[in-house]
Amino acid sequence: MNIVDNLELIKQISITSPSKIVLLVIDGLGGLPHPKTGKTELETANTPNLDRLAASSICGLTDPVGPGITPGSAPGHLALFGYDPVKYEIGRGVVEVIGIDFELKPADIAARGNFCTVDNSGLVTDRRAGRISTEKCAELCRLLEGIKLDGVKLFVLPVREHRFAVVFRGEGLSPEVSDTDPQQTGVEPKAVKAKYNPARRTADIANEFITQAKTILSKHHPANMVLLRGFSSLPSIPTMGEVYKLKPAAIASYPMYRGLARLIGMQLLKTGPAITDEFATLKQNYADYDFFFLHIKGTDSAGEDGDFDSKAKVIEEIDKALPALTGLKPDVIVITGDHSTPALLKGHSWHPVPILLYSKWCRADRAREFSETACILGGLGRFPATQIMPLAMANALKLAKFGA
Amino acid sequence: MNIVDNLELIKQISITSPSKIVLLVIDGLGGLPHPKTGKTELETANTPNLDRLAASSICGLTDPVGPGITPGSAPGHLALFGYDPVKYEIGRGVVEVIGIDFELKPADIAARGNFCTVDNSGLVTDRRAGRISTEKCAELCRLLEGIKLDGVKLFVLPVREHRFAVVFRGEGLSPEVSDTDPQQTGVEPKAVKAKYNPARRTADIANEFITQAKTILSKHHPANMVLLRGFSSLPSIPTMGEVYKLKPAAIASYPMYRGLARLIGMQLLKTGPAITDEFATLKQNYADYDFFFLHIKGTDSAGEDGDFDSKAKVIEEIDKALPALTGLKPDVIVITGDHSTPALLKGHSWHPVPILLYSKWCRADRAREFSETACILGGLGRFPATQIMPLAMANALKLAKFGA
Repeated sequence: MNIVDNLELIKQISITSPSKIVLLVIDGLGGLPHPKTGKTELETANTPNLDRLAASSICGLTDPVGPGITPGSAPGHLALFGYDPVKYEIGRGVVEVIGIDFELKPADIAARGNFCTVDNSGLVTDRRAGRISTEKCAELCRLLEGIKLDGVKLFVLPVREHRFAVVFRGEGLSPEVSDTDPQQTGVEPKAVKAKYNPARRTADIANEFITQAKTILSKHHPANMVLLRGFSSLPSIPTMGEVYKLKPAAIASYPMYRGLARLIGMQLLKTGPAITDEFATLKQNYADYDFFFLHIKGTDSAGEDGDFDSKAKVIEEIDKALPALTGLKPDVIVITGDHSTPALLKGHSWHPVPILLYSKWCRADRAREFSETACILGGLGRFPATQIMPLAMANALKLAKFGA
Repeated sequence: MNIVDNLELIKQISITSPSKIVLLVIDGLGGLPHPKTGKTELETANTPNLDRLAASSICGLTDPVGPGITPGSAPGHLALFGYDPVKYEIGRGVVEVIGIDFELKPADIAARGNFCTVDNSGLVTDRRAGRISTEKCAELCRLLEGIKLDGVKLFVLPVREHRFAVVFRGEGLSPEVSDTDPQQTGVEPKAVKAKYNPARRTADIANEFITQAKTILSKHHPANMVLLRGFSSLPSIPTMGEVYKLKPAAIASYPMYRGLARLIGMQLLKTGPAITDEFATLKQNYADYDFFFLHIKGTDSAGEDGDFDSKAKVIEEIDKALPALTGLKPDVIVITGDHSTPALLKGHSWHPVPILLYSKWCRADRAREFSETACILGGLGRFPATQIMPLAMANALKLAKFGA
């Protein structure tokens, strides 16, 4: 059964019921063993609550996109929500823009931008303009937003350091245009080119923006030019309400995850930055929704920094907060990650992610702790992350029988 | 994610790097337990080097085509190289011809041939003509190559013992014709039949070849007739260079595996017939490629002969030679088979094949020996063989992140 059919199938058999599902995503959860101890971050952390829950759960290992594929955050999360991340690929521009709480409209074209440095001959000498400050970035974005484009409303949105985003809003624009970022120094930025004829006007508009930006920025060395990439528009994607008949809510403090959640129709709940804030938000809103996506970022950040101990500590913090979640007695609890981020690799990786699924009906296995090693022998086996939602729905008794 | 998209996806994210991958294929590796000991061939063999490597590897069981499907050698290998063996089906004729260094052209039609024995009534009494010598085979092929066919250039190519191949080169020929090999004795060879009308001329030409061959061979008992099967032409298949951006080399002494490797763009390295020859070839050429396919045939031959002990002995020989491979310190080592060939079944089988994958980043599991039983509990779980290459590429850090 392929994934596309799967969403169609689920849509046919999903039913509404009072039961509640909580999906706790520990970003970058999976790890690699420390060379001295042979234990991963999760295995190193002292996690009595997670271990107790694992003992009455069914466990396994899940591949977000596929064996060997290292997922970005967007595809990793889409898979957790049951959407084929290859079919519903979300462009870099869109990811950047939904990550800063900008409300993108269906016809908008978004692109990711870098301030960069060019020399007198126009050759790129630094693709990141010496990583200018976020404040400087905001100041320059305000200048660029003054650019007038024929028939198009322009948004220039600061992101962080040298990074910003551009949104072109107008009639008949197309995302089918090429990047200007040459991905190397010593060469000129490329011109935006239409991939197909109907995208010509968009290419002209983007090039006009760049020409005017170059003039405006000429006095702002090192940020004296811009590079654009990842032109894209909102994908056409069914909401979780449509597919699962759920009333879903998202608890996430990082903008990108909020943006992704909104994209598939989740209600965004206001929450604070601490792990305990997020668990408190869950409790406060528990009566009003039947699906909660609770996202914790600290594990991924620590993994990206290569900080093994700090990643283990964040996991311990989560473990300490866990009774606030289990105390609500959700019908189904799923705990996993959107991908692995081993501290040893200082980045996302392809390693499958530990998962536990608790419900009264889960048919618990013999895993007695929540760890990569224990999950290998879990009852869920190794399986694609897009199958997590059907499993959670089934365990919440929210899927009717298929066929007579 | 379906397999077709998978190759496309890998093509998008594969990157070139100096890291090296060695894929050691022990043909027909998987087995069945000996009734007296309860141990398979691999479990019976004394394999300290393989066991030590397994202890620092991630292990599992892989299905070449799918659960329950017994693969031929070509589909088994295509899957190992990451190609969907159902989508990229390669005809037997093509496999045979590319295995003997013949340069097949896109319009050529190739078929596999057996010299066989027929009695006075034309009934097949031995499908292999008593396994005549390879020299005799070559002599008879030269005779048959003298046959004149209207508008078609004919090649009759000796392979080994009773086996040969035929290539018909001409305009408008079609591979859509049926076999003559009845796959049993006591019956007549079948006539070649067109599966569709446009293939009628090809069927006529093949039947004319067979008629003339029968006359020529009448004085050459036991090789007094030919059987043809697997009429086919070259498939359209991307090379490993295109998909993985690898510079791959093949070390295989059997022609068919060399042919398959060439078909997907591997460089064929000259090697001797012994296992130690192949490992020496690996060492000699190690600097010049970043992917090596090393094929060992003896295990499959012993399995096909039903010789349990001999299969175990070949595995021991491989184990003894292994330090020549591990001593090169490849970044990724994959050891598996293209299918199982249990001595008890005297042939290929559907049983999933043990696999170990070693790399610095593999996240070793608790498997402490390389065996069917230990691999059941391995961290790779049970998975399709087409996913081996993405895993090997990831572990060699040759795949970029997918999505933002």
